[in-house]
Amino acid sequence: MSAPLKKPIEEFKGRDIAATMHAIGVNARDAARILATLSPTEKEHAIAAMGRAIRAATAPILAANREDVAEAEKAGATAAFIDRLRLDEKRIAAMADGVDIVAALPDPVGTVISGWDRPNGMRIEQVRVPLGVIGIIYESRPNVTADAGALGLKAGNAVILRGGSDSFRSSRAIHAAIAAGLSGAGVPETAIQLVPTRDRDAVGLMLAGLDGAIDVIVPRGGKGLVARVQAEARLPVFAHLDGNCHVYVDKAADPDMARSIVLNSKMRRTGVCGAAETLLVDKGGAPTLLALLVRTLIDAGCEVRGDCDTQAADPRVKCATEKDWTTEYLDAIIAVKLVDGVDEAIAHVERYGSHHTDAIVTADRSAAEEFLARVDSAIVLHNASTQFADGGEFGFGAEIGIATGRLHARGPVGVEQLTTFKYRVRGSGQTRP
Amino acid sequence: MSAPLKKPIEEFKGRDIAATMHAIGVNARDAARILATLSPTEKEHAIAAMGRAIRAATAPILAANREDVAEAEKAGATAAFIDRLRLDEKRIAAMADGVDIVAALPDPVGTVISGWDRPNGMRIEQVRVPLGVIGIIYESRPNVTADAGALGLKAGNAVILRGGSDSFRSSRAIHAAIAAGLSGAGVPETAIQLVPTRDRDAVGLMLAGLDGAIDVIVPRGGKGLVARVQAEARLPVFAHLDGNCHVYVDKAADPDMARSIVLNSKMRRTGVCGAAETLLVDKGGAPTLLALLVRTLIDAGCEVRGDCDTQAADPRVKCATEKDWTTEYLDAIIAVKLVDGVDEAIAHVERYGSHHTDAIVTADRSAAEEFLARVDSAIVLHNASTQFADGGEFGFGAEIGIATGRLHARGPVGVEQLTTFKYRVRGSGQTRP
Repeated sequence: MSAPLKKPIEEFKGRDIAATMHAIGVNARDAARILATLSPTEKEHAIAAMGRAIRAATAPILAANREDVAEAEKAGATAAFIDRLRLDEKRIAAMADGVDIVAALPDPVGTVISGWDRPNGMRIEQVRVPLGVIGIIYESRPNVTADAGALGLKAGNAVILRGGSDSFRSSRAIHAAIAAGLSGAGVPETAIQLVPTRDRDAVGLMLAGLDGAIDVIVPRGGKGLVARVQAEARLPVFAHLDGNCHVYVDKAADPDMARSIVLNSKMRRTGVCGAAETLLVDKGGAPTLLALLVRTLIDAGCEVRGDCDTQAADPRVKCATEKDWTTEYLDAIIAVKLVDGVDEAIAHVERYGSHHTDAIVTADRSAAEEFLARVDSAIVLHNASTQFADGGEFGFGAEIGIATGRLHARGPVGVEQLTTFKYRVRGSGQTRP
Repeated sequence: MSAPLKKPIEEFKGRDIAATMHAIGVNARDAARILATLSPTEKEHAIAAMGRAIRAATAPILAANREDVAEAEKAGATAAFIDRLRLDEKRIAAMADGVDIVAALPDPVGTVISGWDRPNGMRIEQVRVPLGVIGIIYESRPNVTADAGALGLKAGNAVILRGGSDSFRSSRAIHAAIAAGLSGAGVPETAIQLVPTRDRDAVGLMLAGLDGAIDVIVPRGGKGLVARVQAEARLPVFAHLDGNCHVYVDKAADPDMARSIVLNSKMRRTGVCGAAETLLVDKGGAPTLLALLVRTLIDAGCEVRGDCDTQAADPRVKCATEKDWTTEYLDAIIAVKLVDGVDEAIAHVERYGSHHTDAIVTADRSAAEEFLARVDSAIVLHNASTQFADGGEFGFGAEIGIATGRLHARGPVGVEQLTTFKYRVRGSGQTRP
């Protein structure tokens, strides 16, 4: 296709931030109109071109990243921070592979969600269309530039990226590659724009919506960022807040299954949002289950903070306070409590949980159905690890994050949740009586 | 069922408004937890009980309404305003009938939207669940008290109603009937609460979300109300802004069909949001179509404001200015413009329209597909009247309004759009590698 190429954002440099951001919004809106009409093949080719362009730009991306890392080290950043920021050839290749995966995903746009005939002969269809313009605000991980850009574009959206100050040069180098790839594929490079300044005012302007240009904001980063976005945004946000996830082990649980699910839910990776933070054990099953589960966790290097019963089960258990029930540790620590069956388990989850991901382990089908129906979380699981809370594990191919809100997107946000719909009505001259 | 009955809002009278509203939010959240677990039959019975209770309370509702009307007349309200406000036995019966229709609608909660198996044997299902707590802010029409309450409850939500000051007594009487009906059916009467004060601060508190208790706000009323809600809301809004709807008559349109669709789109009811406000006529078809369509409209009592070509077609046509292309008349006035085929028609709609409802009339299938695909409106129609933009006409049974936003709800908002979803995962001991 021969879409008119819009002026890239570099030209706005030196102009004031409000004018620059306004122009980015206008560009995005214009690009969105073109993107909405691209065929699946055109989008697939454009995203694949992005992947190739990233691979081809490995050297300049690494050079830019070295500057970011040097600056961060000079500023005394933590080792974990530097690790998130640092790119190497392997990480760049993985980033490009991720873009390729998105390129090959099924295209959600144009899918008929539902269709029905009216008594007057009209045919009504609910059809998926792009959401429009997505604003992504992220922190130190430069790979979000490629991931989020590709996923947004796959759903036919224009994307405005505002990367972290610390990864500014890396993001700019990745973005330059992306833009070259898009341009080579005949897609407006304004389809994916990067805010060309570290000025924090840019974030405020995005959260105000850029004069109506942005349809939704997706923050990707730590709690500080997400909290700021949620507090200030004047437009919808797909945000991930807390992941205070629970595993409830029912008295009818198979001990071996309970052990492996609890261990995996907590310890596979402790820093992910789907990691379990509280273990609830059914009183009725405590004699066989409690000491076993606690020992398994402690032996695996997990600190256990428990109520009185749990402390009695193992001398190594520390004392849990009220605060532990609401804490998302994101660490090798777990709170453990005895509850009186599935009803008390559900009540605990509803009172202290964050409506993210919660699991029940039981061989009792009716207890499982009760838990699945009454726990109001984005993801509820029966006999499976909470660490499956992930777009990839759901089969979405890629995700832009996990939403803890209730509207539009909930749980893993894949390409489908970056679309909306319209109604397409086909008639033969019908008028309304 | 034997749900615990919560304290009705009347008890908060006399306390300060912030405390009252906070308590309403807490009540709603508690009620929502119970409502989410009701069976379809329980909800159907409760809503049917609301309908019966409204019929039984005809006399007190009429008495309360007479007071509202008397006050409004004394304040010099317009005849149209009084008409929206006034109830009679027929209108109360119609309100109860509307509630009965909602009672009998299919229950959306629990529906499996999609389901799939993962290679590891897990079964994942996306299941409809209630949205949570819906805040409805409305103006003089007291029947919204019943309509919105019933529809929200059908989807398993708790509803907080804030009616207009002018219909305060009427809404209170209707709400008292509803509460009695719910209570008699064993459902917490806090499922549908009415703000027990005319104090406008209550609206501000609702728009701030009542400390996180409200999930979405639905304003129902004039543009002033909707604009205030959109400007001030700190939470998602399903709002209806402008309905600047277009009919494009292509050169390949059947003249008779074009005439009846244009006439119906504009004149069936001029005050509804789906009424056409601009007619676009294809230059190629103008010789046979333009004078015919303009004459039809003028003869039916419609004022036509046209560009030069349209003015030349009929001496009665007035001159259209730029402002006419963006005006939602909601009156017997239409703007008419000649365009050069479907491309220019789409460009005009995208530039001046409000993304609400737009129609093409043509026998040319490919022109129709072009229009349906490229016009980015909530509803796009081929060979049918724009006045079908209505939940009832879509077969939704009832609607809470038409949303012009892009997220979650778009177009007619029926019971299904008042739900969200969760993921239900069934495993057999799976852990994540």
